[in-house]
This record gives sequence, structure tokens and C-alpha cells, in this order.
Amino acid sequence: MLSYRTAGESHGRALVALIEGFPAGVKIDKAVIDAQLRRRQQGYGRGGRMAIEADEVEIVSGTKAGMSIGSPLALLIKNRDYKIEEMSPITMPLPGHADLPGALKLGVRDGRIVRERSSARDTAARVAAGAVAKLLLSRFGIEVVGYVLSIGKAKAQIPEVDAGKLKDLRDTDECFSPDADASVKMKAEIDRAREAGDSVGGVVEVKAFGVPPGLGGHAQWDEKLDGRLAQALMSIQAVKGVEVGLGFGVARLRGSEVHDEIFYDANRVKSGHLTGFYRKTNRAGGIEGGISNGEPIVVRAAIKPIPSISKPLASVDMETKEAVQSVAERADVSAVVPASVIAEAVVGFEMAGAFLEKFGGDSLKEIQRNYQSYSDELRKL
Amino acid sequence: MLSYRTAGESHGRALVALIEGFPAGVKIDKAVIDAQLRRRQQGYGRGGRMAIEADEVEIVSGTKAGMSIGSPLALLIKNRDYKIEEMSPITMPLPGHADLPGALKLGVRDGRIVRERSSARDTAARVAAGAVAKLLLSRFGIEVVGYVLSIGKAKAQIPEVDAGKLKDLRDTDECFSPDADASVKMKAEIDRAREAGDSVGGVVEVKAFGVPPGLGGHAQWDEKLDGRLAQALMSIQAVKGVEVGLGFGVARLRGSEVHDEIFYDANRVKSGHLTGFYRKTNRAGGIEGGISNGEPIVVRAAIKPIPSISKPLASVDMETKEAVQSVAERADVSAVVPASVIAEAVVGFEMAGAFLEKFGGDSLKEIQRNYQSYSDELRKL
Amino acid sequence: MLSYRTAGESHGRALVALIEGFPAGVKIDKAVIDAQLRRRQQGYGRGGRMAIEADEVEIVSGTKAGMSIGSPLALLIKNRDYKIEEMSPITMPLPGHADLPGALKLGVRDGRIVRERSSARDTAARVAAGAVAKLLLSRFGIEVVGYVLSIGKAKAQIPEVDAGKLKDLRDTDECFSPDADASVKMKAEIDRAREAGDSVGGVVEVKAFGVPPGLGGHAQWDEKLDGRLAQALMSIQAVKGVEVGLGFGVARLRGSEVHDEIFYDANRVKSGHLTGFYRKTNRAGGIEGGISNGEPIVVRAAIKPIPSISKPLASVDMETKEAVQSVAERADVSAVVPASVIAEAVVGFEMAGAFLEKFGGDSLKEIQRNYQSYSDELRKL
Amino acid sequence: MLSYRTAGESHGRALVALIEGFPAGVKIDKAVIDAQLRRRQQGYGRGGRMAIEADEVEIVSGTKAGMSIGSPLALLIKNRDYKIEEMSPITMPLPGHADLPGALKLGVRDGRIVRERSSARDTAARVAAGAVAKLLLSRFGIEVVGYVLSIGKAKAQIPEVDAGKLKDLRDTDECFSPDADASVKMKAEIDRAREAGDSVGGVVEVKAFGVPPGLGGHAQWDEKLDGRLAQALMSIQAVKGVEVGLGFGVARLRGSEVHDEIFYDANRVKSGHLTGFYRKTNRAGGIEGGISNGEPIVVRAAIKPIPSISKPLASVDMETKEAVQSVAERADVSAVVPASVIAEAVVGFEMAGAFLEKFGGDSLKEIQRNYQSYSDELRKL
Repeated sequence: MLSYRTAGESHGRALVALIEGFPAGVKIDKAVIDAQLRRRQQGYGRGGRMAIEADEVEIVSGTKAGMSIGSPLALLIKNRDYKIEEMSPITMPLPGHADLPGALKLGVRDGRIVRERSSARDTAARVAAGAVAKLLLSRFGIEVVGYVLSIGKAKAQIPEVDAGKLKDLRDTDECFSPDADASVKMKAEIDRAREAGDSVGGVVEVKAFGVPPGLGGHAQWDEKLDGRLAQALMSIQAVKGVEVGLGFGVARLRGSEVHDEIFYDANRVKSGHLTGFYRKTNRAGGIEGGISNGEPIVVRAAIKPIPSISKPLASVDMETKEAVQSVAERADVSAVVPASVIAEAVVGFEMAGAFLEKFGGDSLKEIQRNYQSYSDELRKL
Repeated sequence: MLSYRTAGESHGRALVALIEGFPAGVKIDKAVIDAQLRRRQQGYGRGGRMAIEADEVEIVSGTKAGMSIGSPLALLIKNRDYKIEEMSPITMPLPGHADLPGALKLGVRDGRIVRERSSARDTAARVAAGAVAKLLLSRFGIEVVGYVLSIGKAKAQIPEVDAGKLKDLRDTDECFSPDADASVKMKAEIDRAREAGDSVGGVVEVKAFGVPPGLGGHAQWDEKLDGRLAQALMSIQAVKGVEVGLGFGVARLRGSEVHDEIFYDANRVKSGHLTGFYRKTNRAGGIEGGISNGEPIVVRAAIKPIPSISKPLASVDMETKEAVQSVAERADVSAVVPASVIAEAVVGFEMAGAFLEKFGGDSLKEIQRNYQSYSDELRKL
Repeated sequence: MLSYRTAGESHGRALVALIEGFPAGVKIDKAVIDAQLRRRQQGYGRGGRMAIEADEVEIVSGTKAGMSIGSPLALLIKNRDYKIEEMSPITMPLPGHADLPGALKLGVRDGRIVRERSSARDTAARVAAGAVAKLLLSRFGIEVVGYVLSIGKAKAQIPEVDAGKLKDLRDTDECFSPDADASVKMKAEIDRAREAGDSVGGVVEVKAFGVPPGLGGHAQWDEKLDGRLAQALMSIQAVKGVEVGLGFGVARLRGSEVHDEIFYDANRVKSGHLTGFYRKTNRAGGIEGGISNGEPIVVRAAIKPIPSISKPLASVDMETKEAVQSVAERADVSAVVPASVIAEAVVGFEMAGAFLEKFGGDSLKEIQRNYQSYSDELRKL
Repeated sequence: MLSYRTAGESHGRALVALIEGFPAGVKIDKAVIDAQLRRRQQGYGRGGRMAIEADEVEIVSGTKAGMSIGSPLALLIKNRDYKIEEMSPITMPLPGHADLPGALKLGVRDGRIVRERSSARDTAARVAAGAVAKLLLSRFGIEVVGYVLSIGKAKAQIPEVDAGKLKDLRDTDECFSPDADASVKMKAEIDRAREAGDSVGGVVEVKAFGVPPGLGGHAQWDEKLDGRLAQALMSIQAVKGVEVGLGFGVARLRGSEVHDEIFYDANRVKSGHLTGFYRKTNRAGGIEGGISNGEPIVVRAAIKPIPSISKPLASVDMETKEAVQSVAERADVSAVVPASVIAEAVVGFEMAGAFLEKFGGDSLKEIQRNYQSYSDELRKL
């Protein structure tokens, strides 16, 4: 079973991701992982610390000659500003963070030991793990693409293009959005928030292309693909909402408007598709009954505006119980752009997990054989 | 660790929920479980089969003299229309269901063996499990209340009242909504959809009162309380979106508008609160950094309009590959009202799980001692 | 992932096994499961209650037309002497049982609520689950055979025969031992113990034939096949020791005496073997480095003599703290013979789990394709 | 839930242990962990590489100012002979290792990528994890002591002394055995094996003192303490058998000889014991019905003699299929002495896990309160 665990504090020595259940024989390209780590640190709205970090992965275990060997992969990302030991306690908890609930949980008057772990810094490890998972998926033509859908009131139109084109559009944009016109407005939203000493939220979307039908499962509540994606996304710092396909849009619609009618075209099989069944719409976001249906997976996450360094929030000194003003330690105006990278990573990991559950196998070759055999059967069905 | 697994087909002999990790010494009131099962079957918009079912739980194991004994609880809910063995294959998959992706997954041209398990009938078992979990929570003053927030365009105003009052308002309403005025409009939405031979979606909300700060965790992505609630909700049939607190509302707001400032009042402790820290707002929905913060937990789920029996949807015969019209087998016009019951159940179960993780203990008395000791410490912090 | 959970009290309504991760398309033969349940109740040394029980499985879910459908299988075994509600507390804990430690754990002066669950009666559910797992294994030519190796000082010689022959020998023997001569001595051991009002222990062995190389894993400590088998066996009531291959015999040997040298014969492949590699010895018991090596899996478990009804043991009344004599409630002289059935079941289940991990797949056909493809590769290696 | 995962190859950059669920507020003494790592590398019978290794732990995460903070602990142990990238394939698999079954599993003709992970080198990570777990246990007066019981035919008599005395005896002995006389014979066994170019096996024992009654559980097969200890021990490289208490000794005994009669002495409570119930014997090894009973836990593991560097074993070249002679790459004559350290570590980890399940809590202080409260209740029972 593919899984990953992370460790590491925001200003500790390093972040760690430990990936298990990854098959042997997959090329683990450090440059590809590093590129994702850099993407996470870039994008419009990021504050100053990002330049400091310049994350790079160290592959501590699980490979030989650049190939996975079926062992757990331990990934290490060193922190350049390792200073946890010098950092003072946080007695003025910042609203919207784990500071206060975490301190109460641990029975201390210090949010530092909580914030060091609850920080979104941990998402670097999740991005690295996701990058490894996507290396596997890409061997099967599955591409996971995350991008920014909206920032504040600026909303992108997502073109109906393939994965490669979508990535191209996104990668040339400072807001990691495939809609250049909307991006101009997104930057304006961020600029205005910065000028106001404030911060701004938004929505990110992830689309997974080339997903075969049959991933996930309907047999038990916690194996449903949509549920697993929802947990993965909601557990990202600052996410307060998750949608699949039409999402909350379904609440105001009639049944005749939300389902994706089913069609069949035998020619699709001949031209390389896994199945002749297809839909003209994708309102379900590629998942019906907890199972991928062959259409692209489409999920979204709502990102809250993080507390800013300029607008103090009322808080209480945990020691004295006096009212204080609490401010953020970091200068990002918006976490939306990096959240698109993180969301892509965690969706990628869950998809790879569902993929391996279906196909089993200990090596890339074995998985390829099993996948091929399933594909052949699908085409005959 | 508290957990549950379910089994059972829609028209099989029975549904089963097997609950593990439940402490000894808790009164397991069959009438309370049955009341939740009935609630799930009632409410405006339900079709005909509900009367047939008249669900009742059989507690097969895990109790003696009506008290839990620390053993797994096996709950059985018999199906009154047990007829799976006579049912014919489904070769015309219904869009929006697991029929087609499930059949492809299993390599068959029959959606029946999939639909029998993917059916929302399984939620009866989840409701029973949730009812048991809530029996534990209520011993600690934690009350989980689910209700309908909107149906179609009709939206309720949720009054700021305590759990008991909220339940009272809800329980006297046919739409399980605490806003009687909105309920009139909700019924109109359902009626109009029925008249149009169509179905209608909506949003349900669950509020958990009396939750102590410190449940869930920030240390690993999959222990975060919001992530776990998101999975539990998204895995309910027909749910396409999940929100915590402001949810997608955060995407258009500034940071200064979304965080809950922190205050302290020593008198709160004297009057019985667990802590003097409090908030005047609850935009976070009671969870910060994956940890409960002492405010009520507030989550929502978007429910899609289920395929109706009157509006056929285009589909394909899996055997002949000919275009066909597929219709629903059941007559519900809306799944929103029962979804509020199911959502309450699954949220209740996750909350009980997080509660037991924090407090350990094998018996109610031991948990009560540990909880008391934590409460005493919280008040001193 | 294949897994099972059990529920049920010794004198409760029923025992339950809930199996998840079982593929679709496998014939689930109730008669085969019932045969295993009966085997567990028979055999030399059993007391009177066994006749009462006459266990029979009810397949509550997970099948249609006698075939598995990819849903969880809920198996129910009714208790004929359902009387838990009338049973009085156990204040005189029986040594060697969970009575006292369980009562302390739960904070009560009553061993009843513990013994009802800790009882070996639960193994009926495990035997049913194992029987289902073996139905899958047998589709791939894997046969798991459990038998009695020794009772007291009487020890069997296990002939080097195939699975079918070994089963035949065992099934015609009252002690479930393939060595008829030793069986005579085993019965004498049991008779002597009975006459002495005492009980007697022994050793059971399980051999799994036809296991392909490559099951289990070396990459993480808890995926090793030997460790998983050890847990499964040690968790059976009355087991106090577990061995693989030579077991404790290795402790007195030199390295030159314990390893199985490796040979190759290309003709083996032609004659249907999965690989040309083979061993002339099987001291490792078919597992090297946590992975099956293609030789039969051989494991053993030491079964303690259960407390008898005739020889009281010193105990203490939990209420009065006075010294008392505690006796068993049941009349078995030896649990060794049924333990061979239970051991076979739990080994079968673990093997099926390791098998499905390797081959993935949602249906028997898909697993067959994947297994065939792996077999073809093995033969080429 | 306390858990750990390991990563790392024998000649990779480093070994990693990632520990989750460890409470905040425990002093994490690097020197204590390092001492265990050194113990693992010492002892009679070790070959040359041990001096090279000189293991030392780097605590990458999870602490501040030397105290645990409730975050995952990532422990790193650098390999001084990091050379995996230069190492050639192993085409001549060594019997008794994962080489051949692992290569078949992965579909390659190379045992190297398997052996690098299957190597007992990984136990350094397990020892580090166990050392951390024991730091927690020792705060509650629980001491886990592992030692050598026998090597070849030389067997120790284990004195009935307390944990401190037992450790003292062991720690002054080159064979890590508390019986100095037997140790002389053990060394002779090792010397004779070395002279013969051979290797020798043995048995290690682990005793856990101060364990409260009530750890583990009887409610589900996989929560039983004995089963979990059996898996932990059997998954150690070279272990082929596991026993609890009398172990295989029970197989030849009568029921009247194997159970520990129960007594009560109110004075025990006054003198600080957790309960007045006690036994005069400990044949059960401290576990009844899967639950600790308050007596010391006693478990054993049989260690096979590892392949030696001097006695080649028949094998086959995976590429050419020609018969070859395969030899070990390392020079240890016996793995028994270090196995006593590893066994202590894994038992320590499992005991800590069972302890935290019972007592819950996020910080040492909270666990101490819960433990105290349970202790108070036990004394009243």
C-alpha cells in the first residue's frame, strides 16, 4: 500500500517525507522533485522567506543508480534557517493558527512548539512526496495539473485543453493560472491586499488527465476516491472547503442538470482510448460512486487569506491573560498560488495510491503488465 | 482506536455495522439508535420505499444488560425487501451512479452487483454507528446536530441557539431545518421538482456543541480533524462538496475578515467553561490547524439532486452498446433531508474517535476521570 | 487490502466476521465454510458443548448467486446457547484466562464481560474467515493444511506428501494428525489426562503448498510474511509459541546446518513449476527475508493445556478478596486438535492477504491474469 | 497511536526511523539512544564492520531543547560506508537471505537491491526507535531488559532479580548474558564455530518489569499483546521462533502445571504495588488472554546462525543458471548477542504503544495524570 508520512519543524534541521509501497524500477529524477519544490516557493504573493529557503531534496534512501528499488524512499529537505533552538515561546497566539488550540491540547502556555509543526512549511515534504508519486503516474500517461482558479474576486476561465497545453499555460503565468487575462486581475487583487496591509484568499483546482476508470472503490466508505481526495485537500493548511466536479453548484440545480449522460463510440477504442464509453459533460468531476469513471478528475479547494503581518489581530497573552495584538511572522500576502502546487501534489499522491491498489505489483514492469491486461479487458467490455 | 466498518447490500439480507474500540460501561439504548434510523427514513421528499423499510437495529454483540462491555459492537439492520437473488443484471447504467465505473472496475457488463453495495442504503449502517458514537459523546456534554441548510434556492437562517433548542426546532420541521419559514420554501422547491418529474439538491450543515479544545491534531496530515471530517462527509452518497466554517466564503475575503480574534474571561471558568479563552466569532468552524478550538464545530456538505424516476438520462446498453434511456429505480425527489441525518452520524462518529484518541481509557469511568483531569488543567492554563 | 474483523460473545446472539477486500467472482461455497466450522468442533479431546453448537454460517452480505461481488462479506454464526443476559458475574477469575487482567483493565470486579469475548469461541469466526480466504487461494493451486504435530509426549512423523494426500491422512484421523501411529499415542495422552482430571497441550503445524515466490516483503518490518504469520498464530487462544521452519531448532545448530542451498533445473519450468530454482531442504519453512521462496510454508504453534473442570486452581474472589478455588466452565481435555483447524484458518487468511497485495485486482479474472503474467515472467527469470 | 516506520539501505546514505504519536514533554536523551546503538554493535561474535559503523543518531525533528514536542521524531543514522552506488549486482544469491525470493519478487536477476534493504543493518533504526520508546516507559517505572539466554548448547540461568540488577549483570558481560558462568561457555561456542569457519545460533530473552495490568486487549485478535510482540520479534532478521512465558514448554505439560494461581495481599497495595492481586509463578510470561496481568512480560526469540564467510553454500548464478558457491559478505560468527539488543528495542516499542493506547494523552504530564488515576482505581478494586 502506497503511503507517506512527514516529519520536521518549520525552523528545525530538515523536513522529511518517508514514502512506502513505491514500486521498484521507476526513475526517480531529483530535478523533477526540485522543480516542484521551487514551484511551491514561487508565484505572485509570496513574501521574503521563500528566497531564503531554496528547497532541494536529498534522496536518503530507496534508490540505486537513480532508480527506485522497492524500498522506502526517505526524502530530506534541509531548512536553511534552522534556528528552532533559539526561538522564544509564543505566548500571544495568532488567530487562525494552531497556536492556541495546540497549546491547550499539550497543556502549555506556548504556541511555538505547535506552530513549528503546524506551519505550512510541512507542505514542502508533501510536495516532494507528491512529485515522486507523479513520476509513477506519468509512466501510465496520467498527468495531474494544479492551478489557480480564483484570487479574491478575480476568476479564471479554464480552457478545455489537454494536460500538456494546460501546464504550458499555467507555467508561463505568475499566478499559476492558465488564464492570462484573469491573472492580471489576480495580481491586482494581491497588490490591493498588500497595499491595504491585508491578505487575500482564493480557489485552486486540480485536474487529473488520463485516469482509467475503476480507481477507488464503492465497497467501503473510506475507500471512496472522492473521500480520500477530500481528506488530502482539506488537510492542507488554510483550506476550508473542497469540491468535486460541480461541487456546491449541485445544491441549486435540478437532477436533470447535474448528471453526465453516457455514450459509446467503438472508434474511441481503435484510437487508443481505454473504453468506448464516454461522456459529453464532466459535472461529476470524473468520480461516480467513489470510483473514477474515465473522465478527468476535477477537484477544488478554497484557500483562506492567511493572517498578515500588517493587520494585527486581537489575542491574549497566555501567561498574563492580558489582551494583546498578535501578528503573523511571515510576509506572504496570499497562500493561493503555492496552494495550487501543494494541491496538485496531494492529489497526485492519492491517485497513485488508488492506482497501485488496483494494479498491485512490485515493479514498474509488473504494474505495466497488469495495467495492459486491464486495458485490454476494458476495451473488450 | 474507535473505528467502524459496514457491510450489506441494498436488497441483501441485512446491513451490518461493526464498531471497534468502543469503551465499556456506556448504556447502549436501542431506542435511540432506532430513532435515528427512522429519522433517516423520514422527511420531506422521500419516496415510497422508505415506508417499506422501517429500519430497526439488532445489537448482535458487544453489550450485556444494555451496557457496552468493551467488545466490538455488531449492529444488524434487516432488509424487509430482501430480493437480491431475484434481481436481474443492470446493463443500462444510470449516470451519476457507480453502475458503469464499478462494472468496468470489476470487468463485468452488469451494474447490479455494484449498485447493490454503492447504494445509499448503506448509510443506514453508518447512521446506526453514528448513533452509538453519539451515545458516548453525550456523556461528556457533546451534542452533534445535523440539519438542512438549503434545498434548491430556499435557504435557512440558522439561529444562534444551544444544541437542545436547535434540535427542537429541527425536530418539529418536515425538512429537518430549524428555520420554519425557509422550510416552507424548501417544501415548495421539492414539490416543484416533483411536479417537473425532476429532483433537487441542497446543503446540509452539522454543528457539534460542547467540543473541548484539543481534539484532532496538527502533527501529521491525516490526523487533522478537518481532513477527517471532510473524508467522512464526502464519502456519503451524493455529496460533492464539503466546507468547514466559512468554507468557500473565505476565497473572496480579506485576511482581516476571516480570523476569529481571541479573548479571555476568567469568569467563564467559574461558570463551568473548560477555558477562559473564547471567540466572538466562529468563522473557522471550531477548527484551527486541524485541532478543535473550543468553539462549536461547523461543517457543511453539498448534496446533489439524485437521478429521478421520471426524467430518463441517456445511457448505453453494456451488452449491445446501443443507446438507451436509463431511469432511477427509486422515487425520492431529494436526498437532502436524509443527508442531514447521515451527515450528523458520520460527524458524530469522527468526533467520538478524536475524543477517544485524546482521552484513552477502556471504560466510561476511566474516560470520565481522564477528561476531568484534562478539564481541570485547561481551566488552570 | 484483504482484512477481517470479528465480533461476538461466547454466549451472545452470534459471532460475526466481516471480511473486506475480497475480490469479485469467487464462488463462496457455504458447505465448504460449514465443513471447516464442523472440523473445529470435532476431534478427540472435545467436551460436551461442541455438540450443542453445531455451527453453521449465514452469509449475510457480499454475494449474489453464490459468487462474491466485491462487497464486504459479513458472516454470521448463531450461538445455540445464547444466554449471556442470564449469566452471573465471574468474581472468581480463572488463572490462564483474561478474566482477571481484563477485569482490572475495565475497572470492574467481574470477569464475565471479559471472558465472553476473550473466549476461544471467537475462533469460529476466524475459521469462517479463513475458509473464505482459502476458497480464493485454492483457485491458484495454493492449499493450506493444518494438523496436529504432537499432544503431550506423543509426536507425529509428518510424511513428505502433497497437499491432497496430507489432507486425506489427516481427515481420517480423530486427532487430525497425518500419522496414524502417533495418533494412537495422542489419544492415550488425552485419555490419561482426562482420567487424571487434567488437560494436555501440544503442537500444531500448518503447511501451505503451491505458494509462489515473492509474497510478503522485506522493505518494512511489518510487511514480513513470517512476522504476520507469527502474530496471527500467537493471537489464537492458548498459543504460547510460534515457529517457522526449523524454529527453535536453529538455536543449537551451526550455520552450515540451517540454510537451504539453491539449485536450478530448467526442466522444472517445463513441467509446470513457476521457477527452475529449487531447494532440496526446507529448513527455512518457505520464508527467507520475510518473503516466500517457493517452497512450502511451514509454521507451528505451541498450544497450552487449558484449565480443566476437575482440577481447581487457587484464585481470589474479587469482591471479598478471599481465597477461592476456580474451575473451568467447559469440559475440553485438550484444545490442540481444534487449534490445528484454527491455525490453518488464520494462516490461510494471511496468505491470501499477502497474495492479493502482490497481484492486486478487483475480480478473480483480473487476479488470474496478473498471476499468469507474473508466472510467465518468473519462468523466464 | 504510537508507530514507527524505517527506511534506509545497508550501504546507503543513512538509516531513518520516523516515530509518530510520541507525546510532548519527554526528555529525548541522545546519549541514551547512542548507547543502545553502540550496544547493538558490540558483543562477542561480531565481525569487523561493526567498528567501522560507530553508529550515532541525529535527531532531525520532533524536539526543542532536548524535549519532545508532540511532533513526529525523525531519527537519522548515517552510514559510514556509504557505497551503494558503486556496488555490483548480486547474481549469486545467498541461501537464508532475501536475495533470491526478493529478486524473483521484483523480477530482476540481482539480489543487491533486495539485500541492501533486507539486511539486518535496518535494525539500527529499530534500536533507535525502541530507545526512544523506552525513554517514555522509564518515566513510568517500566524497564525492558533484553539478554542472551543461550548460544549453541550453552544456556544461562536467569536469576530472579529486579530490572536494575539484571541490567548490571548483563552489561558487564561480553555475551550480554546475566549468567557469567554460562557466558564463558557461550564464548567457547562462538570460538569453536569461528575456528570451524562456521556460525552459531541461540536464544534471546526479553523481560519487561513494572508493566501495569491491563495493557493490550482481548477484544480483537490483532490487539492482543502477545500477538503484537510475536510479530515484532519474528520480523527481526534471523528470528525463526518466538515464545511467551513457558512457550513451547507448554506442549508437554498438563494443565495443572502451566497456569499461574492467583493470590491477594492487601499489604502489597500499601507498599506501592498497583494491585493486591499477585502470582507466585509467571508461567504465562505476564500475558493472559492478550492482556498484561501485572507480572513481568517474558518473551524469547530463536536466532538462527547466519551464513558465514568461510563456509560457502551451494547456489546458482541467476544470469547463467550455473551452480556456484555463495558466501556471506560479513564476518559475524553469531548474531545472537546483538539480537538481544534488537529484541529489547522492539519489545520496548510495542509495550510503549500498548501503554499509550491505554492511557491516551498528548503530553507526559497528561499521561502521568491518567496513569495515576488508573493506578488509584486499581488499588481500590
